[in-house]
Amino acid sequence: MKFIHTSDWHIGRQLHNQSLLDDQRHVLAQIIELAKAHQVDAIVVAGDIYDRSVPPANAVALLDDVLNQVVNELGIPAILIAGNHDGHERLAFASRQMLSSGLHIIGPLSDTVRPIKLTSASGDALFYPLPYVEPATVGHVLDCDVSSHEEAMATLLEQVTEHDSQGLPKVVISHCFLDGGSESDSERPLSIGGADKIAPQLFNDFSYTALGHLHGPQYKGQPYIRYSGSILKYSFSEQHQHKSVTLVELDEVGEVNIELLPLTPLRDVRIIEGELAQLLADGVNDPQRDDYLMVRLSDKSAILDAMGKLRTVYPNVLHLERTGLMAQTEQLAIRSDHIKKGELAMFTDFFSQVAGEPMSEEQQQLMAELLDSLHKAEDCQ
Amino acid sequence: MKFIHTSDWHIGRQLHNQSLLDDQRHVLAQIIELAKAHQVDAIVVAGDIYDRSVPPANAVALLDDVLNQVVNELGIPAILIAGNHDGHERLAFASRQMLSSGLHIIGPLSDTVRPIKLTSASGDALFYPLPYVEPATVGHVLDCDVSSHEEAMATLLEQVTEHDSQGLPKVVISHCFLDGGSESDSERPLSIGGADKIAPQLFNDFSYTALGHLHGPQYKGQPYIRYSGSILKYSFSEQHQHKSVTLVELDEVGEVNIELLPLTPLRDVRIIEGELAQLLADGVNDPQRDDYLMVRLSDKSAILDAMGKLRTVYPNVLHLERTGLMAQTEQLAIRSDHIKKGELAMFTDFFSQVAGEPMSEEQQQLMAELLDSLHKAEDCQ
Repeated sequence: MKFIHTSDWHIGRQLHNQSLLDDQRHVLAQIIELAKAHQVDAIVVAGDIYDRSVPPANAVALLDDVLNQVVNELGIPAILIAGNHDGHERLAFASRQMLSSGLHIIGPLSDTVRPIKLTSASGDALFYPLPYVEPATVGHVLDCDVSSHEEAMATLLEQVTEHDSQGLPKVVISHCFLDGGSESDSERPLSIGGADKIAPQLFNDFSYTALGHLHGPQYKGQPYIRYSGSILKYSFSEQHQHKSVTLVELDEVGEVNIELLPLTPLRDVRIIEGELAQLLADGVNDPQRDDYLMVRLSDKSAILDAMGKLRTVYPNVLHLERTGLMAQTEQLAIRSDHIKKGELAMFTDFFSQVAGEPMSEEQQQLMAELLDSLHKAEDCQ
Repeated sequence: MKFIHTSDWHIGRQLHNQSLLDDQRHVLAQIIELAKAHQVDAIVVAGDIYDRSVPPANAVALLDDVLNQVVNELGIPAILIAGNHDGHERLAFASRQMLSSGLHIIGPLSDTVRPIKLTSASGDALFYPLPYVEPATVGHVLDCDVSSHEEAMATLLEQVTEHDSQGLPKVVISHCFLDGGSESDSERPLSIGGADKIAPQLFNDFSYTALGHLHGPQYKGQPYIRYSGSILKYSFSEQHQHKSVTLVELDEVGEVNIELLPLTPLRDVRIIEGELAQLLADGVNDPQRDDYLMVRLSDKSAILDAMGKLRTVYPNVLHLERTGLMAQTEQLAIRSDHIKKGELAMFTDFFSQVAGEPMSEEQQQLMAELLDSLHKAEDCQ
């Protein structure tokens, strides 16, 4: 049994108001190619299919197209669970009418876990899809008393443990936050204050756990308790991550072999830093100048329309930071006795705060002359 | 071949801010019972499945439940097309994965008409689903030049006419406005100024045309070119309509037999009229007092919290009109020379405008005394 584990597609997401739909289409096409090349028996998507509970129509059309290629054209079964970004009822509409096609979309939680048995030449396996749910929902649907994400998950996993798989390996699919997991800037916390954390040990006894939610690929506790990570960098904090899908091979006794299959984005997401002139000069020969960029300008002088100038070379600059003009935090405190100083002294203080270095003799001389001429002009009025 | 033709479910619609979801669930359950009782071979829904392109989640869940009962539990194929209220991409998500279950949802227009062949013991038929589309969309998708709804429909129907049905009857499913059709207050016009009108004759050569859009059941041109009408009264203008679904029986040569199967709403939509005291007295013994009501009060005097009083007897009064206090239009014109009149004369004019009859001698006397005492009170200040 060989399958691709992926998650956090977030179809319809924007990065700094830039639609990523073309980028998502590009990388989803790669996943389809990888599924074909590796002749997988299934594709598992562990939640956050869409970025919003009400996705835009073109996001719906893209997912429709991808699933059609996977399920109808390649004949590969697909299992998708709802994540915390998805609208559970909307995502799972008419899902019972899709089952015979091999498409399994699991939205709202049902009161009994319904495993999906997938078959392959190299052995069968049971997949237990657990859509993202609030603890209160677990309490309501299963009519039990749970107060935390961990208790809720433990209750759900009891059903998985107790289910008789007739010796077949058990694969759990879940969208949650495992204690100790590395976060990125692009995840929406499941709850405030750490109450969303779940001990990885809960999943120890299953052959593989396909997780979604965290956007960096990683495992927790055991190598077979794993986040595939998102398919794209959805924040600049992820600039150094390598996005991939996870190829999982299960043998008949549930031993697992894992390989990361890298994804190549249409445009990378990265941060560049330096003075404007240098960046513009470098950019002309940068084959990756179409990347989505955050630019940190170290110039200390004011620049008219820095964004416009940068975009003549780097068309997809999404965010600009003027690090050269930023005040160092420790110098920011304004002391009230500054008010009593003269104008020149106040200005030299201000200059050193925002520029990070004191005014030169020459600059001070220039400023003194400027103030003097301003005063004279005032006197004439 | 026997099928139910229905349309304009508008799931998720509200009537004067009142959710109709329970009413829709009630009447959709009747349709399922009718399908069972009449052992139909198919259910056809001719558009406006939902009321909005982004339906609320509980509307999605209701449709999901209804389709599951029809398609999975009863094994009856269902064909749904998008109407002008539906979001085409959203409605048709993963529809290719539903086909093998017998569920056919047609959202966006495709460049070639794709008939659906349904079989039955009493003969087969071909169904040609034409989702609602703007003329510009037809022009774009079919790469042709059409400027009106009628031209667009003629172009689409050419494909139907030319398609070789191998002698089987052709059933067209469409959501449009046929010239001469009777409108209700609850339809959203397809275009402004009558440019949406289509000659019924375009459909003459097909065995049956299952239409959606107009909310009153009716046929145009030929009895087999028919609107089933909506499943509920969606405005008070429909109070005298009898809602139904259409049972269509096609024989092997395409001769058609039509029967209207009435629907009974959970709560009727109607208008009652009279004086408050009488209505309250009548209501106590009204077995239909839970109906959705527009009340026209003929009382000529002011009534404190008329809505509150009515709702003690009729809990679902949705709209109140004070016909007794309404000015007759022809009396509404205010002439500027009224300003020059005295207060009493102005008030008698005002009274006759809003009450529809002149003040009595006694009323005028009372008003004169009141004005007099007001003036005296002013003088004392």
